Amino acid sequence: MRIAIDAMGGDNAPDEIISGALESIGLLDEDDELILVGPKELVIDNLKLPIKKNKKTPIENNQYTIINNQLSVVDAPDIIGMDEPPIETLRKKVKSSIAVMAKLAKRGRADAVISAGNTGACVAAFQMRMRNLPSVNRPGIAVVFPTFEGPVTICDVGANIACKPINLYQYAVMAGVYSKNLLGIENPKVGLMSIGSEDAKGNEVVKKARELIKSDKNINFVGNIEGRDIFRGVCDVVVCDGFVGNVILKLTEGLVDGLFKAIKHELMAEKLRLAMKFKPVMMRIYKKYDYNEYGGALLLGINGTAMICHGSSKSRTIKNAILASKKYHTEKINDRIIEYLSKTSIRTIDEQAD
Amino acid sequence: MRIAIDAMGGDNAPDEIISGALESIGLLDEDDELILVGPKELVIDNLKLPIKKNKKTPIENNQYTIINNQLSVVDAPDIIGMDEPPIETLRKKVKSSIAVMAKLAKRGRADAVISAGNTGACVAAFQMRMRNLPSVNRPGIAVVFPTFEGPVTICDVGANIACKPINLYQYAVMAGVYSKNLLGIENPKVGLMSIGSEDAKGNEVVKKARELIKSDKNINFVGNIEGRDIFRGVCDVVVCDGFVGNVILKLTEGLVDGLFKAIKHELMAEKLRLAMKFKPVMMRIYKKYDYNEYGGALLLGINGTAMICHGSSKSRTIKNAILASKKYHTEKINDRIIEYLSKTSIRTIDEQAD
Repeated sequence: MRIAIDAMGGDNAPDEIISGALESIGLLDEDDELILVGPKELVIDNLKLPIKKNKKTPIENNQYTIINNQLSVVDAPDIIGMDEPPIETLRKKVKSSIAVMAKLAKRGRADAVISAGNTGACVAAFQMRMRNLPSVNRPGIAVVFPTFEGPVTICDVGANIACKPINLYQYAVMAGVYSKNLLGIENPKVGLMSIGSEDAKGNEVVKKARELIKSDKNINFVGNIEGRDIFRGVCDVVVCDGFVGNVILKLTEGLVDGLFKAIKHELMAEKLRLAMKFKPVMMRIYKKYDYNEYGGALLLGINGTAMICHGSSKSRTIKNAILASKKYHTEKINDRIIEYLSKTSIRTIDEQAD
Repeated sequence: MRIAIDAMGGDNAPDEIISGALESIGLLDEDDELILVGPKELVIDNLKLPIKKNKKTPIENNQYTIINNQLSVVDAPDIIGMDEPPIETLRKKVKSSIAVMAKLAKRGRADAVISAGNTGACVAAFQMRMRNLPSVNRPGIAVVFPTFEGPVTICDVGANIACKPINLYQYAVMAGVYSKNLLGIENPKVGLMSIGSEDAKGNEVVKKARELIKSDKNINFVGNIEGRDIFRGVCDVVVCDGFVGNVILKLTEGLVDGLFKAIKHELMAEKLRLAMKFKPVMMRIYKKYDYNEYGGALLLGINGTAMICHGSSKSRTIKNAILASKKYHTEKINDRIIEYLSKTSIRTIDEQAD
């Protein structure tokens, strides 16, 4: 398969992105190809060392600069900043790495696209160019939380901040397929994020979504869940609006950091030796519950494989994202989603109700 | 002042509630009165010990059973369960402790009401009977998060799950007054919960609320904040929709528990001795960042003082809630809110826009 990587995405681009891509090559199949997308000269410049070592010279071929059988560079001189407004910026910067990657995917020249850049721009560009899967109304970003009770997949964490009930139903389906086939969870338990477990709790969208999900007997639905349940092994999949999901994602990040800071502070106040002893324990927890293991978040519902990584991604994250996108593609997750949604009647019900 | 306490609210009622009330009496002024509301015989039965000690006999006086100058019991035989649907249950159980407390407040017989019971029922009953403060469209629940960088007040955490921009603006005002006058934070920094710091980020309600808050030059507005910023000292007040706030509240609770569980597990695997040494550190952190210190959450915008405590409240929480409600009343927080909102023109602007 062909995997396009945004060489300019994230806070550590291009160094860490390129390192991650190079690290992954040895772990891919021989006929897999990586396409680094970014300002040509800058990217090639950053590749210098391995090229010299292999004594190869890049070959120009249309827009591609071919480094070797498994690696090429596609020029994308425009750079989108992490905080630029997505839609306007995409319109202005038509030669940005994100826009170029989306076009590669549209033309069938890339089976997967990966970026640690501006999330909003990624969602907009990928959705616009790659289009949705048949039967999917809106794509959603699915992220895996490594919890004490096992991995929990949360969808959506920011693609769709004005969800309709049908969107939440489809997130339940898509994240369920993902959880089962990529994380190996047989019959994943699905929970709907709300503010109380009773049927009557939640806003109107949540209440309607609850009815839709409940009516699909193929979903192992546990009903409404609350914020605290994410870490209690209550479910394997959490469905929520992109606004709420984004708050959950970032709150978790901030709280873990804040709590470790507080623990460190207390330990230092106690005894330096105790703090030193605690350090490896913290490191082990960080490693065990490290979302970098999963590479990044998947944009589910897109006609292709699209992965969005954290802005602070290091080479290991990018390497894992490449491997995860390969697995997503190989396991034919999209085909499974299409098959599931083509058989359900729930799409029609909601369209009538809306 | 007269403070009514729901003797039947929460998982540890009535024992812990009554203990908390009794503990607080010594810390109140001599002319302060506590009113325990619940099934009369059950409550009096639970009071037995201290009454016998004081050799006093309860005196019946209308619906009041007077225990002593500072303590009375008001009969409320109906009990509302923690998970019962609020509105319907209030309609059916007119003699529940929550309904009776709300009526006491309405008739001016209680200056403050405190419950660790069904939050939805509290919000509905207090709002219905006590009414809103002049100029306040919808009350909001404000909770204080003790963070590493200091206390952060979050409003709303569950009273209003379908916020309009004007509600969010008023939460900014009310939580700001609270933060300044009760927590002693001079010119508190106010942040609006969203999914990115830029103006363009967030749903329509958040975008409009941002304009409203921004236009009030008396608010020290830091703009949009993200989930991670709560624990980073970015602001002293966080404004959000009740649905989002409720998820934040419960997620934080669950994550802290989950993380401590993970740390304990790792420490046990390492060395039992290390785990033993870490225990006092954890206890100190729990104590330092313990929301029980603040007693509970305040229902801001209500014409009176209403405090809603966590369902798992122990006597210490109830005692602190009683002291906090006293401070809220003494500091005339409601008068300050009324004064602020009567001077601002922002109410009118939004009503025209809506």
